[in-house]
Amino acid sequence: MQLIDGKAIADVVKAEIAETVRLRKEQGLKVPHLAAILVGHDGGSETYVAHKVKACEQVGFESTLIRFEADVTEEELLATVEKLNNDSQIDGFIVQLPLPKHISEQKVIEAIDYRKDVDGFHPINVGRASIGLPSFVSATPAGILELLKRYEIPTKGKRCVVIGRSNIVGKPVAGLMMQKAYPGDATVTVCHSHTENLKEIVSQADIIIAALGSPEFLTADMVKEGAVVIDVGTTRVPSSETKSGWKLKGDVKFDEVAPKCSYITPVPGGVGPMTIVSLLKNTLLATEIKF
Amino acid sequence: MQLIDGKAIADVVKAEIAETVRLRKEQGLKVPHLAAILVGHDGGSETYVAHKVKACEQVGFESTLIRFEADVTEEELLATVEKLNNDSQIDGFIVQLPLPKHISEQKVIEAIDYRKDVDGFHPINVGRASIGLPSFVSATPAGILELLKRYEIPTKGKRCVVIGRSNIVGKPVAGLMMQKAYPGDATVTVCHSHTENLKEIVSQADIIIAALGSPEFLTADMVKEGAVVIDVGTTRVPSSETKSGWKLKGDVKFDEVAPKCSYITPVPGGVGPMTIVSLLKNTLLATEIKF
Repeated sequence: MQLIDGKAIADVVKAEIAETVRLRKEQGLKVPHLAAILVGHDGGSETYVAHKVKACEQVGFESTLIRFEADVTEEELLATVEKLNNDSQIDGFIVQLPLPKHISEQKVIEAIDYRKDVDGFHPINVGRASIGLPSFVSATPAGILELLKRYEIPTKGKRCVVIGRSNIVGKPVAGLMMQKAYPGDATVTVCHSHTENLKEIVSQADIIIAALGSPEFLTADMVKEGAVVIDVGTTRVPSSETKSGWKLKGDVKFDEVAPKCSYITPVPGGVGPMTIVSLLKNTLLATEIKF
Repeated sequence: MQLIDGKAIADVVKAEIAETVRLRKEQGLKVPHLAAILVGHDGGSETYVAHKVKACEQVGFESTLIRFEADVTEEELLATVEKLNNDSQIDGFIVQLPLPKHISEQKVIEAIDYRKDVDGFHPINVGRASIGLPSFVSATPAGILELLKRYEIPTKGKRCVVIGRSNIVGKPVAGLMMQKAYPGDATVTVCHSHTENLKEIVSQADIIIAALGSPEFLTADMVKEGAVVIDVGTTRVPSSETKSGWKLKGDVKFDEVAPKCSYITPVPGGVGPMTIVSLLKNTLLATEIKF
């Protein structure tokens, strides 16, 4: 069993991005500039955005944080999105979700120019990815593929079972795993809450991507000997072992599943660290290529 | 075994659309208006467009056919698309594919306002369908779902195997069959040219959607007793039995597969007749709802 070290890979990719930025500077090319809009003071959102800004600094990107109080109107927010769409200095930007209830997240997402939508949530990016056109792929699916690639895990012709059909992970990662590319060319099955004989289906998989958000759902009896297991789950469960009072649990019962795997991602330290790296890669792409 | 009669269902749906149009007229509401752009004189394209125009007449739609010679420039074509985008009398329009090689089909498709893209080929419609937002679904996948619905074929929790991963059939129909809806909520697997153990996988399916374009590919030994088989294939093969010198062949070896099925679509007369109906439904939708 080999542990997929998301933290280590994230550091490698960040170093590569930093080198690309250094070369761009040397050649007098534009330095990538990411903007983030943060509404309110949600603890989780504050942390995520802070990590994203810090990651930008690490790789030499410029970054701009735009803050609004939770009572910002939808109009004000949309006006800011429009301003960023038209600001040639900003290569890509994100609006940190969730937004307060009085603001339509979908409306805000669709207001973003898809060519700057480095979160990859705009329907046009979702569609372009599905068709196989250049696009921004959302962070978690992109991070999963990067891990498979870096560990040179074969995917062509393999049975891949995705558990979960969310718009931000399950569906897009299924689409990527079946595309004519590497990683990809897999025979993909998507399982979900209505799936019958789930255990039977999952136990046929060479690659299992667990993305249902149910702590320790995947148990050893569901996993074929030698399978690759990617754990996307990150549920906070109460814990007396940590100072914060909670710890992150994946969708995989790691202790019993790991011994059966050829490769497995831990939680934390697996897919998680890759998501910010995906955002950086998208921002660099937005700077390099205009599609 | 019950034959799924696409021709009969298409007539039923057309009658429903005609009745809706009649009611709209009575209420002084706008009559749906479909425009079609046809470039050159390809025999197949001529026939398809003629059928579409005729179907519009049958249900009481207005229709406009815009013809160009094969040497039309991309700029001229794009200018016409732009004109139709801005013409409030036109509710939806299509550009009949294929286009001559000197014109980028993708560029033309993306130039169409997605709110008038009744073929459902624009990436934004592909993405909206994937996310579950209101959208125009392309004709063949929509037609398949309509058939499943009209025959009240259960799909929830069923194993559905799609053979073929094309952008216009395989991928979108897989997405629809896994969505939280009826028809949908199925456990979907997409197989393709790199799939290993295809026979084993397909023989587990409750619903098989064959869309690979390989005549008589699906044989009886691949089909579970009682399965539902949807045949999307329409390959022209030489034939001495017909005046034209060719006949349509599906992807299913009908004679040997049919006896094992609970439901099966024939070729011709199965999915085929539903595609024009889907186009009419999209055009009606474009007239009724502005999203």
